[in-house]
Amino acid sequence: MVNKILIANRGEIAVRIIRACRELGIRTVAVYSQADKNALHAEIADEAVCIGPAPSRDSYLNMGAILAACELTGAQAIHPGFGFLSENARFAYLCKRCNVIFIGPDASSIELMGDKARARETMQKAGVPVVPGSDGLIESLEDARKVADAIGYPVMVKATAGGGGRGIREVHTPDEMEDAIAAARGEAGASFGNEGVYLEKYIIDPHHVEIQILADQAGNTVYLGERDCSLQRRHQKVLEESPAIILDDKMRRVMGETAVRAAKACRYQNAGTIEFLVDKNHNFYFMEMNTRIQVEHPITELVTGIDLIKQQILIASGEPLPFRQKDIHPQGHAIECRINAENPAENFRPSPGRIASLHVPGGPGIRIDSAVYQGYAIPPYYDSMIAKLIAYAPTRDEAIRKMRWALAEFLIEGVDTNIDYQLAILKDPDFLAGNVDVGFLDRKQLQTQKKAESAASR
Amino acid sequence: MVNKILIANRGEIAVRIIRACRELGIRTVAVYSQADKNALHAEIADEAVCIGPAPSRDSYLNMGAILAACELTGAQAIHPGFGFLSENARFAYLCKRCNVIFIGPDASSIELMGDKARARETMQKAGVPVVPGSDGLIESLEDARKVADAIGYPVMVKATAGGGGRGIREVHTPDEMEDAIAAARGEAGASFGNEGVYLEKYIIDPHHVEIQILADQAGNTVYLGERDCSLQRRHQKVLEESPAIILDDKMRRVMGETAVRAAKACRYQNAGTIEFLVDKNHNFYFMEMNTRIQVEHPITELVTGIDLIKQQILIASGEPLPFRQKDIHPQGHAIECRINAENPAENFRPSPGRIASLHVPGGPGIRIDSAVYQGYAIPPYYDSMIAKLIAYAPTRDEAIRKMRWALAEFLIEGVDTNIDYQLAILKDPDFLAGNVDVGFLDRKQLQTQKKAESAASR
Repeated sequence: MVNKILIANRGEIAVRIIRACRELGIRTVAVYSQADKNALHAEIADEAVCIGPAPSRDSYLNMGAILAACELTGAQAIHPGFGFLSENARFAYLCKRCNVIFIGPDASSIELMGDKARARETMQKAGVPVVPGSDGLIESLEDARKVADAIGYPVMVKATAGGGGRGIREVHTPDEMEDAIAAARGEAGASFGNEGVYLEKYIIDPHHVEIQILADQAGNTVYLGERDCSLQRRHQKVLEESPAIILDDKMRRVMGETAVRAAKACRYQNAGTIEFLVDKNHNFYFMEMNTRIQVEHPITELVTGIDLIKQQILIASGEPLPFRQKDIHPQGHAIECRINAENPAENFRPSPGRIASLHVPGGPGIRIDSAVYQGYAIPPYYDSMIAKLIAYAPTRDEAIRKMRWALAEFLIEGVDTNIDYQLAILKDPDFLAGNVDVGFLDRKQLQTQKKAESAASR
Repeated sequence: MVNKILIANRGEIAVRIIRACRELGIRTVAVYSQADKNALHAEIADEAVCIGPAPSRDSYLNMGAILAACELTGAQAIHPGFGFLSENARFAYLCKRCNVIFIGPDASSIELMGDKARARETMQKAGVPVVPGSDGLIESLEDARKVADAIGYPVMVKATAGGGGRGIREVHTPDEMEDAIAAARGEAGASFGNEGVYLEKYIIDPHHVEIQILADQAGNTVYLGERDCSLQRRHQKVLEESPAIILDDKMRRVMGETAVRAAKACRYQNAGTIEFLVDKNHNFYFMEMNTRIQVEHPITELVTGIDLIKQQILIASGEPLPFRQKDIHPQGHAIECRINAENPAENFRPSPGRIASLHVPGGPGIRIDSAVYQGYAIPPYYDSMIAKLIAYAPTRDEAIRKMRWALAEFLIEGVDTNIDYQLAILKDPDFLAGNVDVGFLDRKQLQTQKKAESAASR
């Protein structure tokens, strides 16, 4: 068992990992940028090392500085969290070379799943349903038009190295194909240094449903239920829930077993997520695999009672999973609202700055993962998510009601937040009925009231 | 179903009840004393009514003012919380007379259980084991000595109207009897206006184990597991946990069934708690019944997944219990630490004042019930408990580890607190081994370090 872990991340996920280490009796090393010298993760860790200036490339993406901090402090393992270096195969490989345990899958799994066209092929071979599309990369315009004719318009041109919604273009007619390929190639080249693109059928108004898996070093692989993450703004998740109400028990089991097959096909170890699109006819298609822990992991923890971060650390230490598939019985309903420092009225512009006043809700069924405190200055350099508010109750209806009072009690002054926007989602009749899809939030202009007005109407 | 409830209480329990009402779609009326005009419960309720000056007798114990607030706002029911008027049979009776639903048992049950000698007799008749002692009140010194000779010394002289540790004296020899009776009578007369006393065998170093019950208006009565509340300072509970590790499944079931029998014997309705003493040989004895919700109810909520406050409201509205005994399967382990504004180094002297800085822990398995915020001035008039920190995990060991980091992260500046004292309990080898009894904390001088020193050693 390792006895000291370096956390190569910041914010609430770094705090979350430190807490898990404490429960396991493992000492912690935080790394922080110069902009984060007052950050909570650096404060509560056993040790903290400054790894460079604010811009991420100089600190949280600086592999040399992070590995040096590991060497300096004698940490035997690195937890990468999410974002930053968490899906960087080279970093996972470098850790191994330096005899440091990377708490995540092997570099080869990250590399395979990071190459979208190769991942697609691997999944097809493993019998995992994929969206109809090209076999591998598109070689030419004619090639692309031939594939599109065969699968039917509309289609998507997608960068093989893509992620975060970049390098993707919709194509509705053959005429649009040439420009779409050029645009996707250009964006992908600039963003990822790889111009390769492939074609997929455009699934109309799907749900985003993802399956959490855990796999130990002996190859025991289990699924831990699903998350519906259809509520997204510009490909960024906003609110997630588990279970997904569009699935019945049979489909839930089939998708879970498919996810386990997908993980085994890339010899996956540790925690991972298989993302699927589910169409109106309840067909599901592999979209991609996230080879790391995810922002929305707490809702799975609440419905399963399993601490995913602790399991990640135990797996990386060589421990076998302490449960089998038959032991996992998700119960109740969990919802997570991402609380961002941003202004919904100004096109969700980030709103960094000092938190003048903070009151967080508590009470039954409320979990808050955050790294902010009253007086903390949110730096402008990083993601705008400052807290995750999670509600857990026996039923979806109760979880929604619980989340409403929790949002109503959540007070953050000094910066703008999306709290009222989340409240508007939780009162929307389509959301309440489950009539949502990945385009829902981008199509719908939710009315958010000013805090004072909405308080009266609650 | 009622649609508006007045909460005749303050602090965290008032906030807790308001949250439950919100989930049920019920409007809320807070009442507050002049000292509580900035209190959170008054802030978050739909309506708030000032009921008088700071001293409790002029506000939170002022039945007329509270019933007038009910009339004024049109609230159909009153939730009394705990303390204050919650176990006042006259108040329950007055509510009924005013056509207001008292969310709790009938006045007759409160009255019966509030008279300790009568409660004892009722329990004996129902086949509930009671501590050996006198049949009813003691009439004379000779009478007392005869009973004591029969059951064996040491014995306790107890006020029949007692509560909170007042009106109780230990007697180790026949010579001590006369003074003990006089002292107990004097204290009971002054405190409760009732000099009646009875005799019980003194149980040496018992555990305090209590059973939570729920009973609907149709008489369906269930038990919801137990709580071990042996950690007390001067009869005030400090830390509670569920399940009680000294019980095995068989004893748990027998005590649960006994508690249900006890509740039925007094035609009990709503939530209640039967408190038992458990001696070294695992004999258990009825101590008393608390005819209200208790401070430590959250640990039962966590292990059972049942919201006790919502159930109280549903029962008072005439709803049947939505579950039966066979549906209740406590899981995992929950611990509650009461966080008090007091100074352990100065004999736990209360420490009211302004909270200059506040950071509450969050994350997986952590629940906080509180009513304080940064900048809030804790008034000197009320109980010193300002928050309840509750940890829930699959096992006791994990819950203890979780509670430790949560306490270590809990920052309250501006007033003294018992956070370090709670941390010392959670590191004590006897506590870890479960070697505790109701006298444990009073006997043991736990070392608490200053915050700065302890931070380094965590």
